[in-house]
Amino acid sequence: MDAVVAVVVLANNDANKFPHSAPPRQWSVYLSGEIHSPWRSELAEAVSHLPVTLTGPNDDHALSDDAGAMIHGAVPTRPHWDNIGARLNGLRTTTNLKEADLVVVKFGEKYRQWNAAFEAGYASALNIPIITIHPSSISHMLKEVNANATMAVESVDQVAAALDYTINGTVPATPEDWTPSENIWGKGNPNPGGK
Amino acid sequence: MDAVVAVVVLANNDANKFPHSAPPRQWSVYLSGEIHSPWRSELAEAVSHLPVTLTGPNDDHALSDDAGAMIHGAVPTRPHWDNIGARLNGLRTTTNLKEADLVVVKFGEKYRQWNAAFEAGYASALNIPIITIHPSSISHMLKEVNANATMAVESVDQVAAALDYTINGTVPATPEDWTPSENIWGKGNPNPGGK
Amino acid sequence: MDAVVAVVVLANNDANKFPHSAPPRQWSVYLSGEIHSPWRSELAEAVSHLPVTLTGPNDDHALSDDAGAMIHGAVPTRPHWDNIGARLNGLRTTTNLKEADLVVVKFGEKYRQWNAAFEAGYASALNIPIITIHPSSISHMLKEVNANATMAVESVDQVAAALDYTINGTVPATPEDWTPSENIWGKGNPNPGGK
Amino acid sequence: MDAVVAVVVLANNDANKFPHSAPPRQWSVYLSGEIHSPWRSELAEAVSHLPVTLTGPNDDHALSDDAGAMIHGAVPTRPHWDNIGARLNGLRTTTNLKEADLVVVKFGEKYRQWNAAFEAGYASALNIPIITIHPSSISHMLKEVNANATMAVESVDQVAAALDYTINGTVPATPEDWTPSENIWGKGNPNPGGK
Amino acid sequence: MDAVVAVVVLANNDANKFPHSAPPRQWSVYLSGEIHSPWRSELAEAVSHLPVTLTGPNDDHALSDDAGAMIHGAVPTRPHWDNIGARLNGLRTTTNLKEADLVVVKFGEKYRQWNAAFEAGYASALNIPIITIHPSSISHMLKEVNANATMAVESVDQVAAALDYTINGTVPATPEDWTPSENIWGKGNPNPGGK
Amino acid sequence: MDAVVAVVVLANNDANKFPHSAPPRQWSVYLSGEIHSPWRSELAEAVSHLPVTLTGPNDDHALSDDAGAMIHGAVPTRPHWDNIGARLNGLRTTTNLKEADLVVVKFGEKYRQWNAAFEAGYASALNIPIITIHPSSISHMLKEVNANATMAVESVDQVAAALDYTINGTVPATPEDWTPSENIWGKGNPNPGGK
Amino acid sequence: MDAVVAVVVLANNDANKFPHSAPPRQWSVYLSGEIHSPWRSELAEAVSHLPVTLTGPNDDHALSDDAGAMIHGAVPTRPHWDNIGARLNGLRTTTNLKEADLVVVKFGEKYRQWNAAFEAGYASALNIPIITIHPSSISHMLKEVNANATMAVESVDQVAAALDYTINGTVPATPEDWTPSENIWGKGNPNPGGK
Amino acid sequence: MDAVVAVVVLANNDANKFPHSAPPRQWSVYLSGEIHSPWRSELAEAVSHLPVTLTGPNDDHALSDDAGAMIHGAVPTRPHWDNIGARLNGLRTTTNLKEADLVVVKFGEKYRQWNAAFEAGYASALNIPIITIHPSSISHMLKEVNANATMAVESVDQVAAALDYTINGTVPATPEDWTPSENIWGKGNPNPGGK
Repeated sequence: MDAVVAVVVLANNDANKFPHSAPPRQWSVYLSGEIHSPWRSELAEAVSHLPVTLTGPNDDHALSDDAGAMIHGAVPTRPHWDNIGARLNGLRTTTNLKEADLVVVKFGEKYRQWNAAFEAGYASALNIPIITIHPSSISHMLKEVNANATMAVESVDQVAAALDYTINGTVPATPEDWTPSENIWGKGNPNPGGK
Repeated sequence: MDAVVAVVVLANNDANKFPHSAPPRQWSVYLSGEIHSPWRSELAEAVSHLPVTLTGPNDDHALSDDAGAMIHGAVPTRPHWDNIGARLNGLRTTTNLKEADLVVVKFGEKYRQWNAAFEAGYASALNIPIITIHPSSISHMLKEVNANATMAVESVDQVAAALDYTINGTVPATPEDWTPSENIWGKGNPNPGGK
Repeated sequence: MDAVVAVVVLANNDANKFPHSAPPRQWSVYLSGEIHSPWRSELAEAVSHLPVTLTGPNDDHALSDDAGAMIHGAVPTRPHWDNIGARLNGLRTTTNLKEADLVVVKFGEKYRQWNAAFEAGYASALNIPIITIHPSSISHMLKEVNANATMAVESVDQVAAALDYTINGTVPATPEDWTPSENIWGKGNPNPGGK
Repeated sequence: MDAVVAVVVLANNDANKFPHSAPPRQWSVYLSGEIHSPWRSELAEAVSHLPVTLTGPNDDHALSDDAGAMIHGAVPTRPHWDNIGARLNGLRTTTNLKEADLVVVKFGEKYRQWNAAFEAGYASALNIPIITIHPSSISHMLKEVNANATMAVESVDQVAAALDYTINGTVPATPEDWTPSENIWGKGNPNPGGK
Repeated sequence: MDAVVAVVVLANNDANKFPHSAPPRQWSVYLSGEIHSPWRSELAEAVSHLPVTLTGPNDDHALSDDAGAMIHGAVPTRPHWDNIGARLNGLRTTTNLKEADLVVVKFGEKYRQWNAAFEAGYASALNIPIITIHPSSISHMLKEVNANATMAVESVDQVAAALDYTINGTVPATPEDWTPSENIWGKGNPNPGGK
Repeated sequence: MDAVVAVVVLANNDANKFPHSAPPRQWSVYLSGEIHSPWRSELAEAVSHLPVTLTGPNDDHALSDDAGAMIHGAVPTRPHWDNIGARLNGLRTTTNLKEADLVVVKFGEKYRQWNAAFEAGYASALNIPIITIHPSSISHMLKEVNANATMAVESVDQVAAALDYTINGTVPATPEDWTPSENIWGKGNPNPGGK
Repeated sequence: MDAVVAVVVLANNDANKFPHSAPPRQWSVYLSGEIHSPWRSELAEAVSHLPVTLTGPNDDHALSDDAGAMIHGAVPTRPHWDNIGARLNGLRTTTNLKEADLVVVKFGEKYRQWNAAFEAGYASALNIPIITIHPSSISHMLKEVNANATMAVESVDQVAAALDYTINGTVPATPEDWTPSENIWGKGNPNPGGK
Repeated sequence: MDAVVAVVVLANNDANKFPHSAPPRQWSVYLSGEIHSPWRSELAEAVSHLPVTLTGPNDDHALSDDAGAMIHGAVPTRPHWDNIGARLNGLRTTTNLKEADLVVVKFGEKYRQWNAAFEAGYASALNIPIITIHPSSISHMLKEVNANATMAVESVDQVAAALDYTINGTVPATPEDWTPSENIWGKGNPNPGGK
């Protein structure tokens, strides 16, 4: 048993921290929602230095509508055509969703994306944390979803930063004009006597 | 132990069925979605003869937005205000949702109702059956939700009929011009030789 | 809190046992399988003195085939017609099945009853005990089901006897020509020195 | 089955809402934390009109330290003595905690109340919602607990108000100088064009 | 909803505690182990003033050996005979065990009672608390079982006292020559400076 | 941590999709049912390019009947003999079944295959998706099983195509005379005004 | 994704079976019970050709009694000493037990081995299959444990044979004087007309 | 399948034990609590020869307070600022905590560390074992946490020793002046006649 070494995966932001060795935990992140923009590629690029596995639904819209019927055989009514397709797509999405450590859900102003909200609810019931991405203009409509989320952000870069911090304990760079909380409210609690 | 009697809760559509005694199972049905029409009252009326407990979110829109902040104290930013409200509303909705035997979700053409789709996903992950109500015009957008549903119907009366059949084994009345399946495809399977 | 009394529900076959008081536990028993014979009524009769709630599928064959389509609206292909019906029936059967303390499954020589075997598997995965009823002639085909069962018997009366023993600790009457096990192998173990 | 009526438990704040009938759902609320002030009695008084069952730890400090050893027999070392007492107390607290619909945890400035934080973590892992009560002076130290809470308030009356709103859809009275959110940010979203 | 009152179930050992009202929680206690002494009756007597439901295995030894075979039909080999009996007995024991709030297991010097240890392990895996009763002479052999128990005591009266304390917050009477812990180690911690 | 790279496993049907890297998820597929035809080998051949692990029951019929008794020792009654064999086979089947991402169940016209239906029910209760293969002639008898399935197909090739689409987002080739759904009903919903 | 190959793990007893590729599933087997004989080594030898990981309790009796106290510090009373040791041992045993695919439990005539029965109950509640090894002389006392077991055998070699059959579908050698079941009862069922 | 070998991971303290082969189980240990001392590094050093993966919260105090707001954007009220930070930190801590085989929690005299107690409760509800480290001066305040712990020790070296014993069955060295339990109470039980 001599070759066994301890693997330490802790935040190591500066030199005072204890050493660690590879491999760190591999994170599985399911990317739900919007399929008409390249946000999944952009996030993949932004987290390419992190131990992250990205999964998600089939984002080829036409194929996701018709693959079920192509394999099963066409049927004459739309609800059943859709049902065959959606159940087959669900084999991929549900399997990946259940195994995710984190679900990122992107909502936009244009589409209803009920499946995105459905997947957020599914993840939430399974206690899988959620990060939502959406423009602030629709935050009120998303308040129930966001109330179940770890974080609601507006950009893919914020998700990448959240993952970098979560995994490595680093934040890319201090924002300009940043005032640390202890400069605002003091160290400890607002009422320092309270300890 | 002399006064104990067996309670039999089986379908009893006609005189050949064995007797049963009260009380039957009480069904808990959570009503999710649309809050701007009286569909919850209509369903309550339609199932008033059935052993059904109906629950749902607070359907007073203004109060559901502000109750959290009224109790907690106002806060200066909208996402935080909404978060306080949505988390408090979630205490009611999640508690009732988890205990439901069935979740009925009503979608309409006008609103996005991401919370409705979220609750459908939540129920689905917990293996709680769903019935959706929506106009056929939006069935394609709801195909992922419907693929996880017991039934997708267009009216409150259909939900009431489904509950009546489920609980008592009765259907209100044979639809006009009805052709039973055995008149269409014959008894047994399409290929009768197959048994 | 003065009026609260202890409720003791233990086997009380003879006078040496300690007293108990009502009400005992109510047992929920789901009756799966065969729908073309009156076995459910017979069992209800046989356990009418026991605290047992009996549930089961809708046993009106024609209605169980067509109720879904009657409520939802007819569809032109048989697999979808059947799917609509079976999913609606599943609302009743699955809800009751999940809550059962015991599932009794009756198999016969004539029908394939794949739904009965399906429900037996469903119960087994949920750790719900099963008692099967079937003629001995098909015991080999049922060996996987029976390997997951509490007991495999041939008659409704045996199920009633098993329930009476389980709940009250009684067996209706000593079978004729009965030889107790201790008369066959002696008290304790076959090798009495082993104890 | 003629006497069975539907039980409707929905928010009914005004006359437009559909009628409901008793009994509503009984809520079980576990009261964790601080034992040296009468806050449990005060909350009981404040929710005396609501269908709420309150449970909690034994709040007799001396007895909760010594009951275990009194029943088991004294032991010569303190950690063992404490272990016997804490395990016996855990029989009550854990059993009630697991069944709670809501856990209210009260923290104060004076005591460490590690058991309160422990019970909050226990509830959180079981997906049981939490409301914390504490002075604002210690909010920073409680940020991890509060991040898992439905609401963090400062008084027992706020908990009672939250329960009244959750169960009945009512808030006791509009706070003075109250500005509804739609007067601040307008109806819908901040950016009305966003729908 | 005017007639609904809060139900408060808290320890109320003295006059300073807040009022409570009936009915308190009903506790389900499964009594495992030894069947050749009247300890179940004695415990039933000792907790007759408490809201406790007692369950347990069939304690008629001969019947518990033979009931399976009497109902199923005799079989020629002992392991099969025993299997039929034990599986039927398991229908009762497992169903009650799973629902218990507490499992009391009595071990003695004479019998091996592997089924008692089996049931203790079963309860432990389900997170159901255990109290063991056994003479101190066999405590070493039971150390693994006791390490998973809430308490290990020697008499039925100690179990009754533990239940009385758990439910009502009372201990029957202060033991003679009792020294409270605060008289031994002082209030708070051994090192009072530690707070 | 420099060598860590992101692993992206998303549908990549065409050049617009973002890059991904190996290894993708390994899918575990349990093959239930029919043992007298070479369908398992055929499926293995058809998915040999996919990251799929296939498991299933022992498909040597004689051995699966007798292995239990050969290892345990012969017993004089058939139900006991079968029980020993079926329980041993269950060690393999249940262990593999529980870990499957997908269960494929093949039914035929000739055999009753109650164990196949049992395993389908078992998978369904564990929320494991099912694909059934059967001739259309027996679809009515399988309606309850199919109502719980992702898809019901007639050939092994359709299962392979479903897996290829699920894992890689590809379908082998467009069926002849194929009309895409948007050519039938238009883009979006049947009623385009519905958005 | 070109290098990905399907992994097929099916019984392959003879040449008609389809090919498979490595690695097969690794089985985790926890060895509970008897620590005073070399049965664990013997089993390790007997399954050395199989993909099996063996785990178990610390089988150094003196160390398993004292390691807890050696690390924690000695305490003056035996139950406390034993409790410290048993809880530490439980860290190893429970962690390994929970992850086992199979638990083998060896009982003997000499010791009470309540911890073995406890672990069998623990495994059973977690739905982990059990194989017991014990002399036939104590089978009656073990009937409750065996009723929850996959198989009850008398030797380590039988366990190895069961594992070989389970994993590879092979049995070492046909027992002497073996009569296959189909020679005894015929093919299919006892009553061949029944199929 | 010829290259597959059995992996045996059992205590092997002396030469009589059967051989084992690598790799043994990798243990995941979450380090909760105190962040102002180098105890995590010290433990990492002390277990560097063991197959242990160490995880824990971000231990950079300032960053753990502000990272959420830095990524999300600053907000004007402290509770909201803290909420954003604590929820983001929770993504890391909860994900690692849920997967731990063991949680080590370090409490000190100075800080309240409610998050440490919260994480202990969280682990306890998930049945994950806990070892606490704290000075004896605060043992009374920690009695509820310790009653749920495998062991309560005072130093990092004791945790390392407990892990070494758990994994390899070894204890570093016999403590000075050590008296084995069998020298104190004799072999077996205190009352040797009891065995």
